[in-house]
Order: sequence, then C-alpha cells, then structure tokens
Amino acid sequence: MSSTPDNGVRAYIDTHRDAFLDDLAAWLRIPSVSADPGRAGDVTRSAEWLAAELSATGFPVVEVWPTPGLPAVYAEWPSGDPDAPTVLVYGHHDVQPAAREDGWDSDPFEPVIRGGRMYARGAADDKGQVFFHTLGVRAHLAATGRTAPAVNLKLIVEGEEESGSPHFAALLRDRADRLACDTAIVSDTGMWAKDTPTVCTGMRGLADCQVDLYGPDQDIHSGSFGGAVPNPATEAARLAAALHDEDRRVAVPGFYDGVTELTDRERELFAALPFDEAGWLRTAKSHAALGETGHTTLERIWARPTAEVNGIHGGYGGPGGKTIVPATAQLKLSFRLVAGQDTGKVQQAVRDWIAARLPAGIRHEVTFWGATRPCLTPLDHPALTALTRAMGRAFEREVLFTREGGSGPAADLQDVLGVPVLFLGISVPSDGWHSVNEKVELDLLLKGVETAAYLWSDLAENWRR
Amino acid sequence: MSSTPDNGVRAYIDTHRDAFLDDLAAWLRIPSVSADPGRAGDVTRSAEWLAAELSATGFPVVEVWPTPGLPAVYAEWPSGDPDAPTVLVYGHHDVQPAAREDGWDSDPFEPVIRGGRMYARGAADDKGQVFFHTLGVRAHLAATGRTAPAVNLKLIVEGEEESGSPHFAALLRDRADRLACDTAIVSDTGMWAKDTPTVCTGMRGLADCQVDLYGPDQDIHSGSFGGAVPNPATEAARLAAALHDEDRRVAVPGFYDGVTELTDRERELFAALPFDEAGWLRTAKSHAALGETGHTTLERIWARPTAEVNGIHGGYGGPGGKTIVPATAQLKLSFRLVAGQDTGKVQQAVRDWIAARLPAGIRHEVTFWGATRPCLTPLDHPALTALTRAMGRAFEREVLFTREGGSGPAADLQDVLGVPVLFLGISVPSDGWHSVNEKVELDLLLKGVETAAYLWSDLAENWRR
Repeated sequence: MSSTPDNGVRAYIDTHRDAFLDDLAAWLRIPSVSADPGRAGDVTRSAEWLAAELSATGFPVVEVWPTPGLPAVYAEWPSGDPDAPTVLVYGHHDVQPAAREDGWDSDPFEPVIRGGRMYARGAADDKGQVFFHTLGVRAHLAATGRTAPAVNLKLIVEGEEESGSPHFAALLRDRADRLACDTAIVSDTGMWAKDTPTVCTGMRGLADCQVDLYGPDQDIHSGSFGGAVPNPATEAARLAAALHDEDRRVAVPGFYDGVTELTDRERELFAALPFDEAGWLRTAKSHAALGETGHTTLERIWARPTAEVNGIHGGYGGPGGKTIVPATAQLKLSFRLVAGQDTGKVQQAVRDWIAARLPAGIRHEVTFWGATRPCLTPLDHPALTALTRAMGRAFEREVLFTREGGSGPAADLQDVLGVPVLFLGISVPSDGWHSVNEKVELDLLLKGVETAAYLWSDLAENWRR
Repeated sequence: MSSTPDNGVRAYIDTHRDAFLDDLAAWLRIPSVSADPGRAGDVTRSAEWLAAELSATGFPVVEVWPTPGLPAVYAEWPSGDPDAPTVLVYGHHDVQPAAREDGWDSDPFEPVIRGGRMYARGAADDKGQVFFHTLGVRAHLAATGRTAPAVNLKLIVEGEEESGSPHFAALLRDRADRLACDTAIVSDTGMWAKDTPTVCTGMRGLADCQVDLYGPDQDIHSGSFGGAVPNPATEAARLAAALHDEDRRVAVPGFYDGVTELTDRERELFAALPFDEAGWLRTAKSHAALGETGHTTLERIWARPTAEVNGIHGGYGGPGGKTIVPATAQLKLSFRLVAGQDTGKVQQAVRDWIAARLPAGIRHEVTFWGATRPCLTPLDHPALTALTRAMGRAFEREVLFTREGGSGPAADLQDVLGVPVLFLGISVPSDGWHSVNEKVELDLLLKGVETAAYLWSDLAENWRR
C-alpha cells in the first residue's frame, strides 16, 4: 500500500465526472442482451457505440471484430516506450436479460442515479467496469503530462460473455498476434466490500461431465427382479456418494495430485477478511456450511478443488411410487480445479475411478464437456504488486486478497495468450449481478478510474520488460 | 404326491372340454380393461357374464358386488357338511390393455386356438385361471356323486386387479362376514414350467416411500458455493448408496429383525428347481446377477427382504452441463419384506436411519405410500399339503415349491380375513402376462380343472374343522 499523494488524478476525475457518468448512462441505454436473438442488433450497436467512445478517448486503433456470434471491440494505444510492458484489459459489453416486470424499481435500460448509485442492467456487470478505463487512461495522461499511456494499452471487450463466451477462445487464438501482451487485466469481478478493497488473484478451473449408466434393457419389476440384478440408479448413487470421503475430501485417487496448497501467508490474508458466515449463508440461500475438513469456507470455495453433483436422475420421478428397477441413470458432475492440477489428468482419474467401481451388468459412458484451466497469480508477482499498490493508493486502505471460486474466460486469456491474469474489479456483492436493480456505487466506480490511472504509471515504472 | 388313480374326473373333463373352451372364449371376447375408463361398461358386462356362468355352473348364491370403482363377482356354494372347511377362491375378471397394433398375431379380444394354446388377452391373467374353477367344481361333483361340493366353496373375483386393486381391501373389510373362510386360494399366479408343477407358498410384502431432501432455497452456483454447503443431490446419493453394505445386505439397522429365515429343506427345494440363470437374466433384461451375498438368485427374489432405488432425481438433467448445487433431490425407495418382518417397524427404522444420516442444512420429508404385508404358508400346513397332493395327482409329477417376489392382494386376504393363503396357478412364464400374444396352455388349463376337482375332496377329507 502506498500513501503517495495524489498527483492530479483526482482533480481530473472530479472535473470530468459528470460527463463520464452521462456517457456511461448513454451506453447502458443500449439493451445489449446477448442471450436474446432479438437483441443481436442492440449488441452490435453497443459494440459500435463503444468503438466510437474509445476513439474519442484517444485510442489510435479501434476495431469492431466480428465473430460467428456477436461482435467484440478491440482498441490499442501504444506507449512509444520500447521497454514498456503491454497490458491487455478484458471486459464485456453484453448484459444479462432484464425487464421492469421482473421486479426492478425503474426501467433497467433507463439508468437513474439514486443515493450515489447508478441503477441499470450492466452498471456493474460489466459496462461500468469497462468504462472506467476510458476516464482512467485520460486521467493517467493528464496527471503525467503524457500524450500516450506509459504502458502499451490494449482492450478486448467481448459481446458474448453472458452467453458463455462461445467464440472467445477462438477469437483469442485467431487474433493472438494482435492481442500479444505481458499481462491481462480482467475488469469483470468484484471486491470484498465497499470498505474492504481486495484484489482477486485467481479463479478455479472446471471439468464437468455426464455419466450415463445402463442396467436392464428396460425398466423391470422390482418385485420380480429387484435385489438380484444391478440397479443403475443405485450404482449412480454409489458413485456420487463415493465422490467424497467422510472428511468431504474428494475420494478419486490422484485428484489432488499437484495441487498448489495455500501458503500460510495466504491463509492469514484470507482470515483477515471480515467474513460473516451467517451473512454468506444467506447469500448462498443455504442453511449450513459443509465442506472439506480442515479448511474454512473461504478456503473451500476459493482455493480448494471440489467435486459437485450437479444432477442425478434415474427411474421414476412422478407422483406416488412405481416399483421398478430402472433401466438407466445419469449423473452430472463438476470438478472445480485449482492451480497445479492438470485438467486432463483429472478427467482420466475420474474415468478410471468410475470404471473400476461399477459392477458387472452395468454399462457406462462418461462424457466430459471440455475443461477450463485454473489460473492463479502468485502474491509476489510484480504486476500483482503494482496493481495492489495502485488500488491501495486510490482507496487509501490496505488491500487484501481474494480468489474467485468460479471459472471463466480469464483462463482463456491465461492459456491462449500465455500470460498472468490480474483482476481489477470494483463491484461489491450487493451490486445485483444477474438480478434485479443492478447498480454500481459511483464512488467505487471512480476509485476504479483512479486505480487504472495509477496502475499504468506504476507498471511502467516497476515492471520493465 | 399321490398316485391315486383317477376316479372319473378326467373322463368328465374330456367330455366337457370343448364346451368349456367355447365358454371361456366367449368371456375373453369381453374387453374388460380396468385401466381404460372407456371400457368400464365392458368390465361390468364381464362381471355380469361371469355371474350368469357361475349360476349356470350351479352356485346357489351369485352376486355382483359394486365398489366405488368396478364391480366384483361373489359366489357361494355351501357344502352342507357342518365340519367341512370353507375355502375362498380369489381371482380377477379385469384384464390389461391390449391392441392388435401392439404386435399381437391376432386380435387380442378374439380368442384363437393354435398349437394347443388359446391366445387372447386374459387367457392366463386371469380369466382362464378363474374359469377352470367352474369345470373343476362340476368335475368334483360328477366324480364324487355329490350335489354340493365337499367344502364350503366361495369365489371372489374382483374387477380392478390390473389397476392396483384400489377398493379390494375395503371390499374385504365391508364383506368380511360373507367372505369368512378357513383358507383363501389365489388362482392368479403361475408355476415354474410346463413340466415342473409348483405351488407358490408366499409373497413378499412391500413398503415404499418417497424421500424429499431440501438444501439451498434455490439452485445456486457451484463455482461460488459448491464444496462449502450441503448438496441435497449428494445427500440423496449417500442415502441410496448406504442402503446396502458391501455384501449388498440392507444396511438399515433393525431391517432384518424378525425375518423368517429359509429352512434347509426350503433351500434344498429351491435348489431342486431347474433354474437356468442365463435364461432368467434374459427375462430380467439384465446383464448380470447381483444381490445379497450367501444367497442364490431364487432365494434373493423370493425369500429375502430387499431395498431398491426405484428413482432418484435432483438437479440438472438436460443436455450438456449446468454448474449448480441443486435446491432439492428426491428418492423413491421400495422395500420388499418377508414373513416375520413388521411393516410398521421397518418404516420407522427407515425413517430413523434417514434422519440420523443427514447433515445440518438438509431438511427432509419421508412419505410412505402404505404397506403390504408379506404372506407365507409353512410347508407343513395341512391345506398346503392337500393342495400339493391334488396338484401332484393331476400332473402325475412331483410338485416343487416356489414363492412370489412381488406383492399383491393376497396379503389383503391374509390380513383382513385372517387366514392362510394358498396359490393354485397353472400359468407358465411364457404365457405373456401384460405383454403381446398372451395365451394359456390348454393341457395346463385342464390340469387346473383337475387339481381343483381333487382338492375339494382332499381338503374335506384331511382338513376337518
């Protein structure tokens, strides 16, 4: 954390605050809902609007990149300094569906400011967080007297994140030359709380699969045959039950191979977060905490690999009873992975484990839906140190560390571009992502602007190529 | 087994064979499908047809008994001997649905005789087996020179068996005075094989339930929350998996309390049956045998209590993956019970076991759909001995013993009327119950006639009140 006094960044932000918010509101009025085929034109309009805004901001290179789906926006602003690092900022300009009748207090596509917050679909996820980079780079230039940023600054803003980024990895591969960088900064996440600025250091990976079990050729009478032939519903249950041991550790042999364990320092930093488990359970809509013995809830969701039964189905599910031995059963399983785990080896370990556990008379198929690798940036990485310092300077508070339990396009950036991924997000859990009355806190939004302004200077100074 | 020479029964049967088959065919032409509301008139017509036939047979009391559903037929023929036992024959006059286009070689409601078999829906299940009692009692009278049967003979032929006998137990309770008897003889089962006459000595009971598990208030994100809160699909699987131990014995404490174990003699008699496990597996549409260690397949399905997962459902079951912790999960479980088990105690044991196994944060409900008690007649019961002897005399072969793995109205007869239940059935597994091309073997049908004719004499002689 730095206590360096402000060098003009804040004054610039104050002067341009109102115009910045007006511009953001204009963008938020475009209902760029990627999940709605009827809104494809709005998603394209959103891309074109952003491209124009980035040109107006000063980016000398701005392009709208088509995909087989909805377009992304790319912008580039070279530093001019041959030793400056290259930074790629990631965000998305598409939004979740929203309708006033879902329970919004105002039209989700007509932004309003109430009580220091701007309410609109996309205010936090993710237009607001993309947009703070426009004022951020201008504040950086104004405060440093530069005509180009201190780092080579690139932006990639996709248009299909809310639809699962189906074309993003391919876009990264196709445009890898243009997108080459030293680090990618994802501005599509949040921080711990309004008064607790945090930097996320990683996301878990994901391998998920479907397991189909086949027993009798058709449902058969449980009175005539039950208890004397294998039952695929029972076997599906036995697999799902055996996924975890009594300590709720994943019981698949080899699953934990290579896991990067938390350091004592990381555990201390997690423990330093003001975690209210009762409040967290309310957010989880759950009525108890339960997980791997020897780890806290935060460790379990951020830093430990897990196995989850997403679905189990077999046999009769209608009203009353039906005394059958079902013909088939199906499991949907997902495995969250952490740094050090090899997604391919985990998949093979799961396949081997399933094959070894099933009795004769049960045929099975395992289908993995692909895998997302975990990503993790070590606490002592110089770019992470710079980000933490810039954020601390903006917020004037100690910056703590979080991780993200989910999995996302960040892993594509890491894997396709081969760079460490940083997370600069200023959203807070109450911002209502994917829910009604989504909003962004204006003071935090401007702290995002300020952090970006400091970050480009800090990286250029402290992380020379 | 008796080798007493025929005393006129066979000659009587030969003389009346053709008319008997013509009459049966006339009854089989009435499509008394109880499951089809549009056939309710046919079921009533079937009852009236049978009532007329029983009157013509000579029963002095014949009544059609209405129920809240479809009618039953009751008939009574007193012996006149104050010390004669009273026998109640049970059968049903409704049939399973059938249509030519299901794959029948001929119209299911236009009986045809081909190769010594009569093909029609209901030929074996159960009209043929009810009907052999008409010629049976007449042959008995003709051969003995009596004008009334040697036993007090009662028949109850219900019209809703193929629809689960929803009003049968209530009918038994309401008419208990009229139905009072010393034994009930169920003619709605089969024997081992054409060349292996057998008597069934019992049916398993049934207790089945639904278990609903509730975790999060709604499906939640498995990346954000998975691995740190209880998952009802996992808990449902853990319950279903824990139902059996590694020996595939039911692991619910107290489940086996009171179980009447097979005697060495019963195990020997089961083992004496020419059991072809590969053929049985084909019938079971299954690809391996699996069940309680230390017991044969026949022991497992006939004489051992079992637990079966009839259905398990929780979370996502659509295409691809969905990374959730589901809000709910459901199990459908059925327990087959054998003599000596108390259905109420088994239900309580299951409830207690479930409650003790679930972690905090999982709410649950267990709903039992009621219970059917097991029934079992000991091998040395005098009525069973008489039945075995009569059958052996008709078939001129050693009669072996089977049991029935399923559960049925036989238990209502046993429980409501408080009498031992015997099973006199001449159907064979290839008869196509509930399937296409249902048929009855004519020579076996006439052996049924003959067995009944001998049985009334034998019971009256050897089982005085």
